[in-house]
Amino acid sequence: MPEINPQRLMDDLRHLRTIGKYGTGVVRPAFSNEDMEARQWLLDRIGQAGLRASMDGVGNVFGRSPNPGRGILIGSHTDTQPQGGWLDGSLGVIYGLEIARSCAEDRRTAHFAVDVASWSDEEGTYLSMLGSRSFCDMLSLDDMQRAQNHQTAQPLLVALKQTGLAGIPTVKLDPDRYCAYLEAHIEQGPHLDTQEKQLGVVTAIVGIRTFRLTFRGQQNHAGTTPMAYRKDAGVALMDLAHVINREFPTLAGPRTVWTVGYVRFEPGSPSVVPGRAEMLLQFRDTDDGILEALESKTARIVQETHEQGPVEVDLEALPPRCEPAAMDGTVQECLAAAAERHAPGNWIRMPSGAGHDAQILARELSAGMLFIPSIGGISHDIAEDTAAEDIVRGCRTLATATETLLLADLVE
Amino acid sequence: MPEINPQRLMDDLRHLRTIGKYGTGVVRPAFSNEDMEARQWLLDRIGQAGLRASMDGVGNVFGRSPNPGRGILIGSHTDTQPQGGWLDGSLGVIYGLEIARSCAEDRRTAHFAVDVASWSDEEGTYLSMLGSRSFCDMLSLDDMQRAQNHQTAQPLLVALKQTGLAGIPTVKLDPDRYCAYLEAHIEQGPHLDTQEKQLGVVTAIVGIRTFRLTFRGQQNHAGTTPMAYRKDAGVALMDLAHVINREFPTLAGPRTVWTVGYVRFEPGSPSVVPGRAEMLLQFRDTDDGILEALESKTARIVQETHEQGPVEVDLEALPPRCEPAAMDGTVQECLAAAAERHAPGNWIRMPSGAGHDAQILARELSAGMLFIPSIGGISHDIAEDTAAEDIVRGCRTLATATETLLLADLVE
Repeated sequence: MPEINPQRLMDDLRHLRTIGKYGTGVVRPAFSNEDMEARQWLLDRIGQAGLRASMDGVGNVFGRSPNPGRGILIGSHTDTQPQGGWLDGSLGVIYGLEIARSCAEDRRTAHFAVDVASWSDEEGTYLSMLGSRSFCDMLSLDDMQRAQNHQTAQPLLVALKQTGLAGIPTVKLDPDRYCAYLEAHIEQGPHLDTQEKQLGVVTAIVGIRTFRLTFRGQQNHAGTTPMAYRKDAGVALMDLAHVINREFPTLAGPRTVWTVGYVRFEPGSPSVVPGRAEMLLQFRDTDDGILEALESKTARIVQETHEQGPVEVDLEALPPRCEPAAMDGTVQECLAAAAERHAPGNWIRMPSGAGHDAQILARELSAGMLFIPSIGGISHDIAEDTAAEDIVRGCRTLATATETLLLADLVE
Repeated sequence: MPEINPQRLMDDLRHLRTIGKYGTGVVRPAFSNEDMEARQWLLDRIGQAGLRASMDGVGNVFGRSPNPGRGILIGSHTDTQPQGGWLDGSLGVIYGLEIARSCAEDRRTAHFAVDVASWSDEEGTYLSMLGSRSFCDMLSLDDMQRAQNHQTAQPLLVALKQTGLAGIPTVKLDPDRYCAYLEAHIEQGPHLDTQEKQLGVVTAIVGIRTFRLTFRGQQNHAGTTPMAYRKDAGVALMDLAHVINREFPTLAGPRTVWTVGYVRFEPGSPSVVPGRAEMLLQFRDTDDGILEALESKTARIVQETHEQGPVEVDLEALPPRCEPAAMDGTVQECLAAAAERHAPGNWIRMPSGAGHDAQILARELSAGMLFIPSIGGISHDIAEDTAAEDIVRGCRTLATATETLLLADLVE
């Protein structure tokens, strides 16, 4: 097995943490100055590792092994939520870099072709999983033109111009190059932590559906408009959310989740009856049937509220729509064997409640994912953290699985 | 009766509409460039009318008659909501100016002391009814220091510095100068319009209580955090709002109103369980007992939600706290007589659901208010409007009441 260098691994992760540092977390939303600084730093580190470093026209960073032949692609992302944790996707990117380096340093594995990728905008600041979609040729020009920053409304194409990426070609997947795609990530949930497990081998990644609900009433004075005359868009929104929270549990599976993460009342004054309101509703499951049922229920609730009045309600599906993605069986077995070696009896198989670039790559390559524990299950928050020994164990496990897959080229 | 000049009245109102014009409405929040431009224009018009024009240290604009003796103060405000209507408070200010001008032009009334005031920040961009409170000496330095822009968080004292007002003395009420305070305003509600009445004589102004409810949960990943593990501040907020909308009707009077005009989920991403949420709740009534009951109920609901968990809830009363204010009986009778003269059988007595500077002045002077109809009851919206004939009729009615009050000096 290639011997990974724990010190080098941790040093790289800790350095990356300083770029866009915010308290104990990081702020590196896609195409921000900090995100681009992290990409530049990564290009340097990739070059120092003896890989061919490049950044493509959507910001994907690649490290390509000079070795020929069928290899393995290891990737994740270094962009973050508006306020994110220090590991999140960075962990999987630096794992890839460290495994490529340690393979090259060991004469038994020096001929392996281990390539590394850091996909752009996994978190969807402009367009969720932009980089891996582009790589797998799953993006239309129309998708690109419509995408805009959810907070600032800046179009994606403007962001690409400002960062100097516009005009640079995008890199597309050559499926003959790889026998598998691997991605490691923090779990981002409480299952490993509460069950005191050290590793999770992912069985499938949830599908995600996101909707914008827009409520149109009548803006009016909050003191002079009698309750019976009001067309209060805010009240309609809160009533509808209440119905969703009452109805969804009857359709949900044991791991279904749904979230209202964003609401806005306009004009947003304490003395004005809201004339317009907006909420974003998202739900996730690995079972497509459950997603269908929740979507139908949402449409029905919206329709009923709209017909009942006095506020008009509109439902809009937001791109991208992620379908559930099963991980490749053989890759799962290799990861399971590696997990048993490095954490005997202390690992589980589990679905991923979060979306990951692996669900895009899984459509084109045999893909597998490995989870390491999140302390307290916290993520997408600056308090996100993982014990150093869990970080190192995860990297060793992924290195073992990489070696097994490449030695046997079992897959395909 | 002093003959008001309808053309001059409408021309002034229409000119004021061009300052900060936004569609059919205006955007002149307190201490914005547009608000200050409107004040400068008003100072010019006041000077042209032969009144002594001045602006004090909180932005109040005064036009003082050179005549001695007990007079009448007529006022309202020219600042607006973030997106406001063109009449709102501007109407009452220009009424005052027009009545002062027409009294001066008529030899029978040329000795009247009619003073005009345009109070600053009635709408509470920084501190509701800032100007009239300052004039009546009801503001502490502490109130001033704590006040900040509800949208930008800019402190009031910084805004006063930026507009060049800091350091200018504030003008305080000399109660010997006036026998009454009069204020005209659009109704801002549907009562006159739906009952096809032309004027409303105000009996009392509602008390207003405003609260900030802050919800503290745990920010987390919306895909990986099982529903049972969540401490979702947004869900707690919407559940609590639902309870309020269920409980308040049992305590409310026929004209009680309550409003959630502002909500915010943090961090506000569709993929993140909100860790913090905030709402502003406001309720109004002319009956102090009802306000007390609603406040107690709110405190109890907050306490129960907080104790039940898993989200912590905090209730904070926001200044200012407006007590209900009765209008002076004698002034009401003068307004009623004037209304009967200009709209025989076509006027009503009614409470004001909106807060007005008159409720501040009423603590120090005999105060009265006159309402004119709002088309469709719409206000605090750019669609707010009133028929020109109703505008002119209102000014004539207020002029008649002014004359009656000054001729008889009935009050006090």
